[in-house]
Amino acid sequence: MALFAALILTLLPVAAVTDTDQAVADVRSRAEQVHQIIAEALQRGRAMERLTDLCTRAPHRLAGSPGYMAAAEWGRQIMEEDGFDNVRFEWTDAPRWERGSVGRVALVEPASHQAELPMLALGGTIATPEHGLTAEVVVVDSLAEAAELGVSARGKIVLFNGPLDRARVDTFSAYGGAVGQRVGGAQAAAKVGAVAALVRSMTTRIDDVPHTGGMRYAADVPKIPTAAISTLAAEKIAALIAAGEKVVLHFNQNCRTMPDAPNPNVVGDWLGHERPDEIIVVGGHLDCWDVGQGAHDDGGGCCQALEAVRLLKTLGLHPRRTLRVVLFANEENGLAGGRAYVAHHEDELDKHVLALESDSGVFTPRGFTTDANPAARAILDAIAELLAHAGAGRMTTGHGGADVGPLAASGTVLVGYDPDPHRYFDLHHSARDTLAAVNEREINLGAGVIAALIWIVADLEQTLPRNPGG
Amino acid sequence: MALFAALILTLLPVAAVTDTDQAVADVRSRAEQVHQIIAEALQRGRAMERLTDLCTRAPHRLAGSPGYMAAAEWGRQIMEEDGFDNVRFEWTDAPRWERGSVGRVALVEPASHQAELPMLALGGTIATPEHGLTAEVVVVDSLAEAAELGVSARGKIVLFNGPLDRARVDTFSAYGGAVGQRVGGAQAAAKVGAVAALVRSMTTRIDDVPHTGGMRYAADVPKIPTAAISTLAAEKIAALIAAGEKVVLHFNQNCRTMPDAPNPNVVGDWLGHERPDEIIVVGGHLDCWDVGQGAHDDGGGCCQALEAVRLLKTLGLHPRRTLRVVLFANEENGLAGGRAYVAHHEDELDKHVLALESDSGVFTPRGFTTDANPAARAILDAIAELLAHAGAGRMTTGHGGADVGPLAASGTVLVGYDPDPHRYFDLHHSARDTLAAVNEREINLGAGVIAALIWIVADLEQTLPRNPGG
Repeated sequence: MALFAALILTLLPVAAVTDTDQAVADVRSRAEQVHQIIAEALQRGRAMERLTDLCTRAPHRLAGSPGYMAAAEWGRQIMEEDGFDNVRFEWTDAPRWERGSVGRVALVEPASHQAELPMLALGGTIATPEHGLTAEVVVVDSLAEAAELGVSARGKIVLFNGPLDRARVDTFSAYGGAVGQRVGGAQAAAKVGAVAALVRSMTTRIDDVPHTGGMRYAADVPKIPTAAISTLAAEKIAALIAAGEKVVLHFNQNCRTMPDAPNPNVVGDWLGHERPDEIIVVGGHLDCWDVGQGAHDDGGGCCQALEAVRLLKTLGLHPRRTLRVVLFANEENGLAGGRAYVAHHEDELDKHVLALESDSGVFTPRGFTTDANPAARAILDAIAELLAHAGAGRMTTGHGGADVGPLAASGTVLVGYDPDPHRYFDLHHSARDTLAAVNEREINLGAGVIAALIWIVADLEQTLPRNPGG
Repeated sequence: MALFAALILTLLPVAAVTDTDQAVADVRSRAEQVHQIIAEALQRGRAMERLTDLCTRAPHRLAGSPGYMAAAEWGRQIMEEDGFDNVRFEWTDAPRWERGSVGRVALVEPASHQAELPMLALGGTIATPEHGLTAEVVVVDSLAEAAELGVSARGKIVLFNGPLDRARVDTFSAYGGAVGQRVGGAQAAAKVGAVAALVRSMTTRIDDVPHTGGMRYAADVPKIPTAAISTLAAEKIAALIAAGEKVVLHFNQNCRTMPDAPNPNVVGDWLGHERPDEIIVVGGHLDCWDVGQGAHDDGGGCCQALEAVRLLKTLGLHPRRTLRVVLFANEENGLAGGRAYVAHHEDELDKHVLALESDSGVFTPRGFTTDANPAARAILDAIAELLAHAGAGRMTTGHGGADVGPLAASGTVLVGYDPDPHRYFDLHHSARDTLAAVNEREINLGAGVIAALIWIVADLEQTLPRNPGG
C-alpha cells in the first residue's frame, strides 16, 4: 500500500483541475452535438445552393464594381432571410480598378514562333501606351535576379518565370515562395529601367490558363504596366531564349484606376443568449476577381460562414455568445474591408473571442490553422479531436486569413479553415474558379465543421482565453 | 534505489527488442526516401498522362469487349516501355454482356406527368420483351420491403428507392447500405411476381444522371429485366405515388449476354535484387463500365500501380523483393480476374507478402485500409506515420479491394488505397467518370504514397509477417 501511494505521488502530475481542463471536458461532452451538426450539413446543407445563387447573380465582384454591390445586397438579403440580428452594411472606401477592353501579349520575334499568348492584366496595373509597346524580353526567376540585371534590362520587358514548387505537398507554401514576383515584379523591373513586367501565372499547373492577382507600385519607383501570362507561354519564351533566340513581344492593355468607391462589409449577428457582448466572428471575403465566378475564392467561404450559422439555427443550437458573420469587402486588392472592420468595432475589440475565416478554397476539410495561445490551443485541439471522424482533425499553427488579420493586434484568437490544398492553385484567380469546380458535399462538410467549431467556442461555459497583447 | 528499481520493474514492459521493433526502426530510417518519392511524384509524375492515354484510346473497357482488349494491350506496352520483367497476359474467361441499342424508361401515367426518365440498364440484366413492357409501379425502400409486397406486386414494376445515407461522412458505408437493392432487386421483385425491377441510382447526388452497376440472378428465380433510373426520377415517381397517383411506366431495353470471352490479367514484375521469390502485388482493375471513361473506376488505380513502380525505377530505388503490377480483368461484373490470379499463382501464394489495390477513386490520399495481423500492422502503422506529411497518415482496419480479395485466404496481407471519399459516388458507374473529374496532383500524390508503401515493404530487411490461415 505504501509502495502504491509512492507510485502515485511519484508519477502523477499535480491533480488540480485547471480552467483549461474544465473547458476541455466541456468540449469533450459535445461529441453528440458535433455529429448532429455534421450530419445536418451533409444531409440538408445549403451552402452549394447559396453559392450557386451568388455566383449566378454576381459572378464578378471586384472592389468598386457594380457586381460587388449586387453581391453585398445579396448577402444582406440572405442574412435577413436567415433571421440574423442587426443586419447592416459597414462602409469603407475601396479601390476601383478596371481591366479594360484590351489585353494582349503577342510573340512577334522570332517570326517562326509568332503567337498570341494567354494573358491577364494584374489588378492595379497601369495601361500600356495607347497602341501597346513592343520590346525584347529578358527572363529571370526571382526579384533578386531582376535586380542583378542592371542596365541590360533597360528598355526591355522583364519576364518573371520562377515557378511554384510543385514538389511541395502544401501548395500554399509553394505559392508563398513565388508570389512575390507578381506583387513586386513591376517595381523590381522598373528599378532596372524595364518598360514592362510580365509574370508567369501563379499556378501549380503547366497549361494555357492565365491567373491574375494583385500587384503594388512604390511611390518612388516609376510605374510600368504588368500582366500575367500562362505557365506554358512563360516556359515557351524561356526555352526560346535559352536556345539563343532573341524574343520580342507586343504588349497592349488599357486598364485604368478610378477614384475610390464606397463599398460595405456585410455584417449580421446572432446574439448570444447569455453573453451577447462576447463575439465570435466567422467570415470570408465577398469581393473577387473579374474572371471566373470567384466560387472558391471566396464566394464559397462566405457561403460557408452564412451556412455555419444557419445550421446552428436550424438545429436550435443557440449559443451563449454572439455569432457574427462578416462578408468582407476588398480583400483581393487592398484589404480595406478587414481594416474597416477593426475601425468600426474599436470599442468592442476586447470582447472579440475568436475570428474564423474560410479563404483557402471550399474543398474537403482537413482541419484548421490558428495563432491561439497555449490555453486556447488546448481547447481548440480538443475540438479538433471531435472533428477527426469528419476528416478535419488537424489543428496546426498558422494564420487565420487576410481579412481577420487586422484583428490579431487586439488579442482576438484567429482561426483559418484548412481544406485539402491540391486543386486550389489550378483555379485561383482564373477563369477556372467557377461553380463547376465546387463539390456540394465538400462545401457542406466544410460548413459543418466550421459550425461545430464556432458553436463550441461560442457556447463553452469558460470564455476562450484571448491572446496576449490585446 | 530499491524503490526506483521496483518502479521500473512494475511499470515498464520487458525491454527485449523484438523483430517488430527492429522492422519499425527500419521503416523509420526511411523518411528521407519517402520525401524523395513524394516530391518526384508531385513534380514529374506521369499517372495523369498515362490515364489520359488509356481513357482516350479505350474509354469503354467492359469485360469481353474489344475495348478491354485494347486496354490490355495498352497496359502490356506501358509495362514494356517502363522496363518491367516477365510482362505477360494471364488469361481467364470473362462474361460478355452488352447494353444494346435500346434503353428507355418513360413515365406514361399520370398523363400530366409524362416524361422520359434518365436510365441505364444494369450489367447482366436481360432485355425486356421486344417492344418493351408497360406496367404500374410500386415503390419500396429495401429488399425486405419488396418481400413484404406479396401478391400486390404481381404484374408490376418494383422501384427500389432506398437512398444512400448522405449524412454519413464515409460514402462507401452509405453505398454499402444501399447497393443490395441494385444487386438483388431483380431477384426480390421476381419472387413476388413483378415483371421488372428499377433501382434508384447508387449516388449521393440528387440529380438526373443514372448510374449503372452489377446485378445477379439466382438459378431458382425467374429472370426479369432491371435498370437504374436517376435519383430525381426515382423521387418523382415516389412523390406521385405518395400523393395517391397511379404511376405507369414503359420500360424497354435490348441488352444481351453472349458466351464468355477470353480476357487477360496484364502482369509485369520488377524482380527483387535479393529475394525475388517474395512478391508484393500492386494493382487495380482494367475493365470498366461502358459509360464515361472509367477514369476513377478504375483506370486511375491501374495508372497509380504502374506509376508507383515507375517512380521507384526512376529514383533507382530497387527493392530486395519483387514488385508485381497486376491490371485485373472483369472486376465490375464477375471478378474472374481476381480469381484467375490466385489460380495462376497457386504455387507461389505462400511467397505473396502483400497485395495493394487502388479502387476507391484517385482522389487526394488520406491513407490506407488493411487486414494486417498485429505484427504486420505495427510496421504498416509506422509507414503511415511517414506519410502523414502528405496527408496520408491514416491506417485503418478494412479490406484491400475486390480483385486482391481472393488472395486473403492465402495469408497475403491486403492493403487498400483510401482516398478522400466525397466525390466518388457523384461519378461512380456513370457518364461523369471521365478524365475531367481527375486532378493531376491528386492522382500523382496517390501514386507517390503507394510507391512509398510498397517500396518500404519490398525493401525491409525483415519480411512483413503474413496473416494466419495462409
